[in-house]
Amino acid sequence: MGGKPIPPHSRLNGGFNFYSSQIDKLRVSLNATPRSHDRMKLLTKTLFTKQSGLVLVLLAASGSLSAAQIANNNITEAEIKAAQDAWGKALIQISDDYRSGGIDKARATATAVLDGAYGYHHGPVLFKPTLAGGEQTFRINQAGALAYFVGNNQAYPADTGFALKNWQSYNYDNAAVYINGDMALTMGKVHLTDRDNKQTTVDKTWGFKKGDDGKVRIVLHHSSLPYAG
Amino acid sequence: MGGKPIPPHSRLNGGFNFYSSQIDKLRVSLNATPRSHDRMKLLTKTLFTKQSGLVLVLLAASGSLSAAQIANNNITEAEIKAAQDAWGKALIQISDDYRSGGIDKARATATAVLDGAYGYHHGPVLFKPTLAGGEQTFRINQAGALAYFVGNNQAYPADTGFALKNWQSYNYDNAAVYINGDMALTMGKVHLTDRDNKQTTVDKTWGFKKGDDGKVRIVLHHSSLPYAG
Amino acid sequence: MGGKPIPPHSRLNGGFNFYSSQIDKLRVSLNATPRSHDRMKLLTKTLFTKQSGLVLVLLAASGSLSAAQIANNNITEAEIKAAQDAWGKALIQISDDYRSGGIDKARATATAVLDGAYGYHHGPVLFKPTLAGGEQTFRINQAGALAYFVGNNQAYPADTGFALKNWQSYNYDNAAVYINGDMALTMGKVHLTDRDNKQTTVDKTWGFKKGDDGKVRIVLHHSSLPYAG
Amino acid sequence: MGGKPIPPHSRLNGGFNFYSSQIDKLRVSLNATPRSHDRMKLLTKTLFTKQSGLVLVLLAASGSLSAAQIANNNITEAEIKAAQDAWGKALIQISDDYRSGGIDKARATATAVLDGAYGYHHGPVLFKPTLAGGEQTFRINQAGALAYFVGNNQAYPADTGFALKNWQSYNYDNAAVYINGDMALTMGKVHLTDRDNKQTTVDKTWGFKKGDDGKVRIVLHHSSLPYAG
Repeated sequence: MGGKPIPPHSRLNGGFNFYSSQIDKLRVSLNATPRSHDRMKLLTKTLFTKQSGLVLVLLAASGSLSAAQIANNNITEAEIKAAQDAWGKALIQISDDYRSGGIDKARATATAVLDGAYGYHHGPVLFKPTLAGGEQTFRINQAGALAYFVGNNQAYPADTGFALKNWQSYNYDNAAVYINGDMALTMGKVHLTDRDNKQTTVDKTWGFKKGDDGKVRIVLHHSSLPYAG
Repeated sequence: MGGKPIPPHSRLNGGFNFYSSQIDKLRVSLNATPRSHDRMKLLTKTLFTKQSGLVLVLLAASGSLSAAQIANNNITEAEIKAAQDAWGKALIQISDDYRSGGIDKARATATAVLDGAYGYHHGPVLFKPTLAGGEQTFRINQAGALAYFVGNNQAYPADTGFALKNWQSYNYDNAAVYINGDMALTMGKVHLTDRDNKQTTVDKTWGFKKGDDGKVRIVLHHSSLPYAG
Repeated sequence: MGGKPIPPHSRLNGGFNFYSSQIDKLRVSLNATPRSHDRMKLLTKTLFTKQSGLVLVLLAASGSLSAAQIANNNITEAEIKAAQDAWGKALIQISDDYRSGGIDKARATATAVLDGAYGYHHGPVLFKPTLAGGEQTFRINQAGALAYFVGNNQAYPADTGFALKNWQSYNYDNAAVYINGDMALTMGKVHLTDRDNKQTTVDKTWGFKKGDDGKVRIVLHHSSLPYAG
Repeated sequence: MGGKPIPPHSRLNGGFNFYSSQIDKLRVSLNATPRSHDRMKLLTKTLFTKQSGLVLVLLAASGSLSAAQIANNNITEAEIKAAQDAWGKALIQISDDYRSGGIDKARATATAVLDGAYGYHHGPVLFKPTLAGGEQTFRINQAGALAYFVGNNQAYPADTGFALKNWQSYNYDNAAVYINGDMALTMGKVHLTDRDNKQTTVDKTWGFKKGDDGKVRIVLHHSSLPYAG
């Protein structure tokens, strides 16, 4: 790597980093002429092949937009996937921390997860956890969400701590995704496996909102057990 | 009512109708001076009268915006409520039509409802019906949604026709609502009562999108049976 | 006024304040039954009274949405007007501060205005001031904007300080307004009058963006002298 | 090229086309293993090859989102550029048609351009043409825009037909671009050259809105002569 970092677009495309030395080397190897704004184009566009002869293929050249600065806060598919990946990773982390450090460590991790991944600091979150019912079905504020994930809260007596259940792996299949400005919705199956290899599958809907700070947070989360028929 | 209808804002505020005679009467009774653009102001403001003196208090006068034309396609709370009200009314209509005209009439009504209330003509809909499971959990296209509502489709053998179950009344409690541009999300309890007075309660999340044509359509619908604990 | 302030919706409707005593009085005078959530309804609805009988007509009653919490970050007409009003007021304030406190005071005020009213802390601003040209036509960053408003910057030698020109009054006519989610666009004539009663009229386009913090900021500003023909 | 076209995402990324044979060749040359959905990944990712070793570096591999269907109506940079390119091309086309077919042909072309490229069929357009002033500064409706482009309208006596001026080439420099959901704003210099090689440069702001139909239309257009200083 090395070289001077190339200033990224403002908030463009989820923050991939390029280094000037990398691109300069590529230019040299391809005998391409540097142009003042092509560093930007590389972020979203460019395919390079060097089969036998260093042919530059600018597949999407006609779609490149030039501007001194581009502000773009639209949510991207990469960010949605990152948020979905992160949710499961966080759940397993809480589970791991519970085993290694007990409820205090689990609660600290869960609080950090909720602070970072959910939008509770910006308003209500539309959250219906899988195993919550009755008067406590919806966890609009962070205290309710925390109780669901790590239990041990007398105000939520039915909560046994969903994140404490020895989870070890996670994956998901989106049935469909809906992207609208700075917001995205996903719906699909989520599969969780615990350390006894018991799998739990739920129907899950997420709503993600990208903030002014470029961070993606969960503002909607409806999880339910599959209908048994 | 009577009088000449006042031209509404373009797409403003969900289409409440005011009549000039009504407002003129109000002006007279309040001894207020008519001004050229106050008809518009009435749409977004609250008028208070005090019993003794009939003093007009334009609480939000400083907030009125003047322009020859205002385009505004943002979704409003009134539109969200109208869409939520309409969903239950449509379900009962399909049920009524089934009793009076059999499956053909029910299917025709359900098709019309899906055409009007859901966004299937504009793309996929993220729909997880209450009583759908297995490979057919998600009804991304209209055929799947129609099968769920009126059954009688060999491709969806588990569907018994949710809208055919003699529904007679409907109400709902939103736990929280999230409005973002032309999109709104609601989460809460929905209560359905059939003609034997048996009540069904479900946890329901809706996502609504307002189209360029000013119509609000469901693009997300996750319904699930309450967790029994 | 008096009475206990009614907690506003989260970010709803630009922060109009109602006081419980005011609404209670209204209820009494109209013999209306108080209901638990109608305080909120008053924010978005229009009340009419008829002279004979003082009958409360809740014209838009069917459009009221109930929810424990409503998050709504859409920009409102009241907020757009407030932002337009504030722009002129700020310009005059800088002018006044220049007279009373010289360039240092003017610069401090202008900096505060730019910090609060423009979006420079969140990314580039598309700003073409009235009297800027050549290589310095566009003032994408705050330094360029500040130079335009108060001059005295060697890097912008043509800037004489637009806000230092003894402005005393301001008004505007919007030709049209376009509202789209958390963003609004206005286009129209802006009239500025200095203390010698000389009027300057410009063609002005603004783009406003409402942030996650509920504040409205200018992200686009194109101002130009009228075409003389 | 050749090979079977790869089905694009729904509305993703402005419709770049990839051909399977092309990507297969790339895979072979890089000795990479094909995976079922990486064709899509190529749309948003950057491939780098290193001269010695032909190692495929999928820089953003972790960002690919899988779903049966993805709805995404966000405006893309490619679409913004396409709309900016099209504007100049259309202007020159009207000019060409005027030379070859007179005012009737020019008017027909201009009408088609306005129907397709501007949002007049969906509401007001915030349009301030370069050479319009006085009472007719703003052309909120299509009739006013048409008059500006091709003149010959007694209701707009000052209009001489901006598109009839023998234009032969067009280019532009964006100073900044702002993307927000289905809307984008651009600001910069536009250069027009006529058939006598006389160049006209204007300061131009555009606002583009992507419709439900996936088409991008101009909803804001402020053009002004550079400030002479």
